[in-house]
Amino acid sequence: MIQLAVIGAGYWGPNLIRNFNQIPNARVGYVCDLDTTKLAPLAAQYPNLHVTRDYQQVLDDPQIDAIVIATPVSTHRALALDALRAGKHVLVEKPLAATVQAAREMDATARAMQRVLMVGHTFIYNPAVTKVKEYIERGALGEIYYIDSARVNLGLHQFDINVIWDLAPHDISIILYWLSRRPLRVSARGNSYTQDGIEDVAFITLEFADKIMAHIHVSWMSPAKLRRTTIVGSQQMVVYDDLEAAEKVKLYDMGVERLALNADTRAELQRTYRVGDVISPRLDVVEPLRVECKHFIDCIVNGATPRTDGDAGIAVVQVLEAATRSLHQGGKTIEIGA
Amino acid sequence: MIQLAVIGAGYWGPNLIRNFNQIPNARVGYVCDLDTTKLAPLAAQYPNLHVTRDYQQVLDDPQIDAIVIATPVSTHRALALDALRAGKHVLVEKPLAATVQAAREMDATARAMQRVLMVGHTFIYNPAVTKVKEYIERGALGEIYYIDSARVNLGLHQFDINVIWDLAPHDISIILYWLSRRPLRVSARGNSYTQDGIEDVAFITLEFADKIMAHIHVSWMSPAKLRRTTIVGSQQMVVYDDLEAAEKVKLYDMGVERLALNADTRAELQRTYRVGDVISPRLDVVEPLRVECKHFIDCIVNGATPRTDGDAGIAVVQVLEAATRSLHQGGKTIEIGA
Amino acid sequence: MIQLAVIGAGYWGPNLIRNFNQIPNARVGYVCDLDTTKLAPLAAQYPNLHVTRDYQQVLDDPQIDAIVIATPVSTHRALALDALRAGKHVLVEKPLAATVQAAREMDATARAMQRVLMVGHTFIYNPAVTKVKEYIERGALGEIYYIDSARVNLGLHQFDINVIWDLAPHDISIILYWLSRRPLRVSARGNSYTQDGIEDVAFITLEFADKIMAHIHVSWMSPAKLRRTTIVGSQQMVVYDDLEAAEKVKLYDMGVERLALNADTRAELQRTYRVGDVISPRLDVVEPLRVECKHFIDCIVNGATPRTDGDAGIAVVQVLEAATRSLHQGGKTIEIGA
Amino acid sequence: MIQLAVIGAGYWGPNLIRNFNQIPNARVGYVCDLDTTKLAPLAAQYPNLHVTRDYQQVLDDPQIDAIVIATPVSTHRALALDALRAGKHVLVEKPLAATVQAAREMDATARAMQRVLMVGHTFIYNPAVTKVKEYIERGALGEIYYIDSARVNLGLHQFDINVIWDLAPHDISIILYWLSRRPLRVSARGNSYTQDGIEDVAFITLEFADKIMAHIHVSWMSPAKLRRTTIVGSQQMVVYDDLEAAEKVKLYDMGVERLALNADTRAELQRTYRVGDVISPRLDVVEPLRVECKHFIDCIVNGATPRTDGDAGIAVVQVLEAATRSLHQGGKTIEIGA
Repeated sequence: MIQLAVIGAGYWGPNLIRNFNQIPNARVGYVCDLDTTKLAPLAAQYPNLHVTRDYQQVLDDPQIDAIVIATPVSTHRALALDALRAGKHVLVEKPLAATVQAAREMDATARAMQRVLMVGHTFIYNPAVTKVKEYIERGALGEIYYIDSARVNLGLHQFDINVIWDLAPHDISIILYWLSRRPLRVSARGNSYTQDGIEDVAFITLEFADKIMAHIHVSWMSPAKLRRTTIVGSQQMVVYDDLEAAEKVKLYDMGVERLALNADTRAELQRTYRVGDVISPRLDVVEPLRVECKHFIDCIVNGATPRTDGDAGIAVVQVLEAATRSLHQGGKTIEIGA
Repeated sequence: MIQLAVIGAGYWGPNLIRNFNQIPNARVGYVCDLDTTKLAPLAAQYPNLHVTRDYQQVLDDPQIDAIVIATPVSTHRALALDALRAGKHVLVEKPLAATVQAAREMDATARAMQRVLMVGHTFIYNPAVTKVKEYIERGALGEIYYIDSARVNLGLHQFDINVIWDLAPHDISIILYWLSRRPLRVSARGNSYTQDGIEDVAFITLEFADKIMAHIHVSWMSPAKLRRTTIVGSQQMVVYDDLEAAEKVKLYDMGVERLALNADTRAELQRTYRVGDVISPRLDVVEPLRVECKHFIDCIVNGATPRTDGDAGIAVVQVLEAATRSLHQGGKTIEIGA
Repeated sequence: MIQLAVIGAGYWGPNLIRNFNQIPNARVGYVCDLDTTKLAPLAAQYPNLHVTRDYQQVLDDPQIDAIVIATPVSTHRALALDALRAGKHVLVEKPLAATVQAAREMDATARAMQRVLMVGHTFIYNPAVTKVKEYIERGALGEIYYIDSARVNLGLHQFDINVIWDLAPHDISIILYWLSRRPLRVSARGNSYTQDGIEDVAFITLEFADKIMAHIHVSWMSPAKLRRTTIVGSQQMVVYDDLEAAEKVKLYDMGVERLALNADTRAELQRTYRVGDVISPRLDVVEPLRVECKHFIDCIVNGATPRTDGDAGIAVVQVLEAATRSLHQGGKTIEIGA
Repeated sequence: MIQLAVIGAGYWGPNLIRNFNQIPNARVGYVCDLDTTKLAPLAAQYPNLHVTRDYQQVLDDPQIDAIVIATPVSTHRALALDALRAGKHVLVEKPLAATVQAAREMDATARAMQRVLMVGHTFIYNPAVTKVKEYIERGALGEIYYIDSARVNLGLHQFDINVIWDLAPHDISIILYWLSRRPLRVSARGNSYTQDGIEDVAFITLEFADKIMAHIHVSWMSPAKLRRTTIVGSQQMVVYDDLEAAEKVKLYDMGVERLALNADTRAELQRTYRVGDVISPRLDVVEPLRVECKHFIDCIVNGATPRTDGDAGIAVVQVLEAATRSLHQGGKTIEIGA
């Protein structure tokens, strides 16, 4: 039985407690938050759950194997380092940290302490996302050309981080997972319309080797919600629309088949478009957060490396940091270092 | 009765002939193309239409008042200049010219010759686009924040121009018309995947004064067709989806109403989102090309300035030229001169 | 403080407990079910909730003001009569009873005992449904012509009742509420494909005075879920699509405006269609079950008659009974008595 | 070369002329209409086309092989009989005739004269409809359970026929073609709201052997256009939505897999739903009317029986006649004779 403590009782905390408690060999023993009004209902709902404002008490409890950090990103580094140094395994909500340096320090500490460090990029445990990964891995799309993603809606502005840090971690983590690569260059443009210094609209471009591109549009200021990603390959194409109730993934058997060059006259150049069937695959009906929680427990038990480990978390923060830097420099291209 | 000659019998030529011939005080007297196989069916369909390969014959005919140029963009300048110098009024298919310099030369010649020069930005005559313009003009959207537009589908690659020159003239002309402004800066990123040197995917950013932004995504390589533009204002927002059969324009009574700052604690900051009715206005059922053709005839008859005059045409070419330059310089920001 | 007991811990029971417990002047004191495996998790979740298999114990407790019956329909009559005779107010899940006779007996008993009897037609507390009612009441639709409703999906077959008794109570209760009338005649056709004697597909017609018609299609065997109702009036029309995330109700300013009769030639008869704006009104964001629960408490406290009282419940059962009888007689028209 | 005469220059006439003239071995020699204002534009457009008000002139011309009748249904019988007796092949617009008796007389005359009689059920030549037929023929759907079809919109009221005769021929012809069967019984309910005696809304039920059902809803009075047909089979299901631009046909790998009966307790009965992939097949891009016209020419040339022959036309009229009779008798079930 793995005993956990959840730090942060805001939006994600209660969901994490519910999901971990439904895994047979896991149990949440503590929830910790500075705001006691958030702790009271959890205490009422889970009679065996300890609620506390004192993080050190949690760290000192030898029964606790793992710490789940669901607090604002600015606090991730300190909380995670303390937990790792106390010998606990750590699951951190996305993004891993507020800076690449912090993320690297957390990863290095986890390695030094031989503890599991996992970041909660939930979409990597979403059946729609893993189905697309499966298509890419078995070559169904051919060579990947570009990915275009939009994640926009009205509302839920944050006050401490801009829209890139709030929404783009989803798209970035998905794209890096699908491509199994890191971008060479990042650029971004955007603006803050309702709050000084906190951008609420942004357009981000990622450039990879082999001419692969990815573009991400995030906004807190759009009237109609969109959660839509297109992946264009040389053989087939995919649209993943997370708002579709029944057909979230569509695989299009489409492509530009042949480019017949006519030596004599440019006017007779011919392309042939291939337009075939569209398949919307059956997807497992599971709560991605449940899969994520179970994966964390499995990694602890089996000593395995999480699918969203420290490295994956660092890579996402690298892009977030570069995108924000580019945005503040008028869209300048930022090279991603090694 | 205004007598016209249509130059170019490709895709647009026959549509232009059909529309002009249905206007009471207009008549197409000539159609001219180098490819006689395109002329034959038009000759069969319109017994009174002269078909010819000889442009000079058309220019020499004093009965012809106006020339309609529906040929590849690289030929626009020469054909238009000859027509204007021959004293003809000229309607040129979009974009006006292949370079800003050529566009300016055409505009200057039209002014010198006191002839109408109009560019065929058809969407400016589309009831959906003019309805949105109406909303903006009467302040229904409040202050405009940003515009996001996507025009993507599979196919119809061009061989002489990239996807920016092929598809973006629509979005650029619409955006400049709505905003009644010209951008200060343009940047673009994109790639060519199926033909060397001809980009088939691009993302373009336009920056205006007052922090107004516009973003345009164009692609010939996308599995699911999109023709969707979002306009976000401080008071209301609009989505214009040209693929909707019945509700192309939707006006959302939405906004971020109030930002209550609490001096003491960041945690109690509050935004209030206003979410009201959605209205999809009745739109006139007209063929935009018909409205455009009629407007050209009216401008000739009344000596009026077209809504899409040489200036409007130059402005679009400026953005196209800047976008392509930016794209070839890795997304560098290009300042638009006076 | 109104103390309640919930009978039945299946699908609806836990939702009812959660909602009643969130109303300030209500508290669920008991949950009662024969299946103790369903009681255990509720006991764990609500420390102050008594769980029991013994209905009599609940009836005998003088602290309990009201009984909420969420059991299979065949048990409604006996459970409700016992509760009313014990002096309790009663809320019964839809449909009110398995026969009109039982429903009438329950209503008469409630009147005799001067207790509130309410039936859980939840959709009558749904903001989309009440918005349409508001349109009808203020004459926005003009004279109502007909209503067409579809409620189909794959799955959730019942074993004791057919698809009419399972799904059509929603549509029937909505339609009778909107029209403030009862049908004169009912007919239905359908078939059982996967289980003998339990129809899984049906088409029901309701005929009202003044030529008003309603048609309801219900199915457990349809690949794509539909929850869509059209209301056609002489002045305006409405589509209510419960699956739409954002625009559930649309009011169409449409109609057949004028019928110009030409005495001379039938060929020149002319109709004029009026096609105006479409409005999708803002709807309150509330859980309809919460509104329903609160309404029940208010009726108990204030001695008011519920919007979905015994009479409304009887009317729905009349239609269900007539529809099933018609279906079993090959679609014969069944007259609804006084 | 097959020479044709088109009778009726209303909506369908010009489309038929255009399509026949694009078939290499066909040519339209005459168009005949009593209204000369409809003839004039056709004369202008087709210099070699004879226009006339005199049907006898057409019948007397020995060059004319076939007559295409695109006039109101009440005139079909007389025009077709004259043509067949003059030795011409005949294509009649749907429905074949205004009564079953007339349709049978036409069919018998065609057989006696050994001439092709074909009815213009265009949807039978639509690639979406033939794709579904292909699925049914190869058993992909298993046993067919029921079909549900809606064809509604605002407008285009007819003055001489009701909405059943106007819109339902499409659905009836499609359903009979898919099932390769004729219904045993037909019933219908509907009402006339805007014109006395001409129903503008109707609901039709067809009952076939083996418990197969079909339901058709047609209306001229509905705010949102629908052209949607669901086919439910024991193995798979199909939705055919003619308004979808790109994915008109969807094949759902869905069904009720197994019904596990538990002898002891009804409460533990279990159904297993199978929910698999959804496939939207590539469809040929052709104009169905072109395919229909070509098929007529081929049948004349090869002496073949049309896919939509007199028999098919009679079967549709039988259902139309029965449906109208049922509607006028309050929904009474009408048996279809041999």
